[in-house]
Amino acid sequence: MDHRLHKLTDWMKREKVDVVFLNSTENVFYFTQFHTDPHERLMGLFVFQEEEPLFVVPGMEKEQAKAAGWKHEIIGYYDHENPWDMIHTALIKRTVSASVVAFEQEVVSYRRSQAFLAMFPEASIRSVDETLNRMRVVKDDKEIAIMKKAAQLADYGVEVGVQTIREGITEMEVLATIEYELKKKGVREMSFSTMVLFGEKSGQPHGNPGERVLQSGDFVLFDLGVVLDGYTSDITRTVLFKEGTDAQKAMYHTVLQAQLAALQASKPGARIGDLDMVARNVITEAGYGELFPHRIGHGLGINVHEYPSMSHLNDELLEEGMTYTIEPGIYDSVIGGVRIEDDVLVTSDGFETLTKYPKELQIIK
Amino acid sequence: MDHRLHKLTDWMKREKVDVVFLNSTENVFYFTQFHTDPHERLMGLFVFQEEEPLFVVPGMEKEQAKAAGWKHEIIGYYDHENPWDMIHTALIKRTVSASVVAFEQEVVSYRRSQAFLAMFPEASIRSVDETLNRMRVVKDDKEIAIMKKAAQLADYGVEVGVQTIREGITEMEVLATIEYELKKKGVREMSFSTMVLFGEKSGQPHGNPGERVLQSGDFVLFDLGVVLDGYTSDITRTVLFKEGTDAQKAMYHTVLQAQLAALQASKPGARIGDLDMVARNVITEAGYGELFPHRIGHGLGINVHEYPSMSHLNDELLEEGMTYTIEPGIYDSVIGGVRIEDDVLVTSDGFETLTKYPKELQIIK
Repeated sequence: MDHRLHKLTDWMKREKVDVVFLNSTENVFYFTQFHTDPHERLMGLFVFQEEEPLFVVPGMEKEQAKAAGWKHEIIGYYDHENPWDMIHTALIKRTVSASVVAFEQEVVSYRRSQAFLAMFPEASIRSVDETLNRMRVVKDDKEIAIMKKAAQLADYGVEVGVQTIREGITEMEVLATIEYELKKKGVREMSFSTMVLFGEKSGQPHGNPGERVLQSGDFVLFDLGVVLDGYTSDITRTVLFKEGTDAQKAMYHTVLQAQLAALQASKPGARIGDLDMVARNVITEAGYGELFPHRIGHGLGINVHEYPSMSHLNDELLEEGMTYTIEPGIYDSVIGGVRIEDDVLVTSDGFETLTKYPKELQIIK
Repeated sequence: MDHRLHKLTDWMKREKVDVVFLNSTENVFYFTQFHTDPHERLMGLFVFQEEEPLFVVPGMEKEQAKAAGWKHEIIGYYDHENPWDMIHTALIKRTVSASVVAFEQEVVSYRRSQAFLAMFPEASIRSVDETLNRMRVVKDDKEIAIMKKAAQLADYGVEVGVQTIREGITEMEVLATIEYELKKKGVREMSFSTMVLFGEKSGQPHGNPGERVLQSGDFVLFDLGVVLDGYTSDITRTVLFKEGTDAQKAMYHTVLQAQLAALQASKPGARIGDLDMVARNVITEAGYGELFPHRIGHGLGINVHEYPSMSHLNDELLEEGMTYTIEPGIYDSVIGGVRIEDDVLVTSDGFETLTKYPKELQIIK
């Protein structure tokens, strides 16, 4: 991953930033290919304009971090050791004169920021969050290939869910079956807590699956994704069980039209905020404006929510290689809710959905 | 949960802290009983000595936060709104004169700390982490009751795992079955990525389950836990499949003796570091000292890793109601590893293990 490090050091030279400190699992993974959850322990990467970068990991993780491909200096520390003392010693060996230092201001805790900044008391402070977000926002071919596989597994999760529903089954039973089948295919981690919601519970944008029993006439909403080789997927589909009212069908078709409108607006050069606007207009014109309380989507990649925010306020332009979700929804606390979500890749002249599970309304008998 | 808020405001009055800001999901849950993952969105609690506390949540979560039992002011903001502007407006209505403000310095990001501190440019800064850790470290009866149920589910997970192993099965197939059976019992979330490791892979303290196929003579290591009503469990058991060498059995018995020694040392007034020491002595005297690279355990509660750290350096004393793990291990990269872990509650005159799955060496035929 040295080309990514070079891109970062190029930015550092241009902006006269002497030291960068990262500690989010996602950005550490982006540069080292090592993906782990260090819990409360520090796992951090220190990058310099010219000197060798330094990777600090809990001692137990050191061999796996090397095995993941890290070729530069690595420090493993044990629970009784203070990693900041070891970092200080390693930094002194480098001829770093730091007048400007940068770190992930949106991620690094206040306390760690103080430990980092204490080593450079005279330095001025910069943020590296935006730079890293921009580096990560356009995916390369290898990343896209992984994300396509992650999206296929999400499709499969919905397929399993649709095949599993039957009268009297609970949300949790369906959820357990979906995750079982995905894990048998090698999925170690879901992108987030899988959501299976029946009937009026689908009317909560962030409802919790439980012991609700499936009944005829219920909406069934699936929202799930997997983590594959460090990248996420995220799909939502809604189906009807056995039958549906005209009101439910009208709601569904409005969401689908809104989703298709936002997809059609996806191409290089499009203003990101317009994707939300076109979908929101469809929903508002159909009279459901008050029932769509969230943005149209979010960037997708190593994080299941990442840059860019697909909000109507975002004036930035789409570029080829960007990946994000498009997921309009309408939520009624009585008749339930509908959300339809795809993972989207911007291509040279338009878009491709990475998730491909059908979207025409299904009434499962 | 107003008695918890009162305990916090008592501390604030004593220490002359005017405003406290929390945003970790765990501490927010502790005071509000509302448990959710807000992803990158702000979810924060502002507490004052006398004035009404203020809970800020993503707009979509507002009704569920109220339903969880929050009785005081709550602000829901939408994605296009800046919650800090709304917080500022709500704070101005309170007659708060802040000369000292505190926040979770180990958790709050540098950027959020700056947004918070910008509202109190003259105030001096305190940490509230330690205070909250100390509040949370002794569990009340309701918390213990939940943790016992969470531990029973962890026991059940191991039981399912042991019943599932057979020649030729993969680590991921066993893992999928364990999680399926737990989810059917209503478990929505595991405490951490479930670990099922066979043979030489059990010799990695933080190995990754995969396609390794079970063979006669393998150690099988299970490390798993569930989240139940906001509280975690965490169990490790290791068994032998079909047969074992004397070297494997000797390793197992050493870990078991070390684990029992640390349990026996668990009682009110015991120095926490001594629990690690007595277990480490057993392992070192048996000649495996170099192969036990981690501390004896960690505090357990809302977080799967929380205060106190069960390191040999910890000079604090155990108190009735504390809960933590005891999990010595010996890791050999060729013959594999053994770890045995229980969740422990300090009682008035000793300890109780919350996890109860048997620990005598099992050779599964």
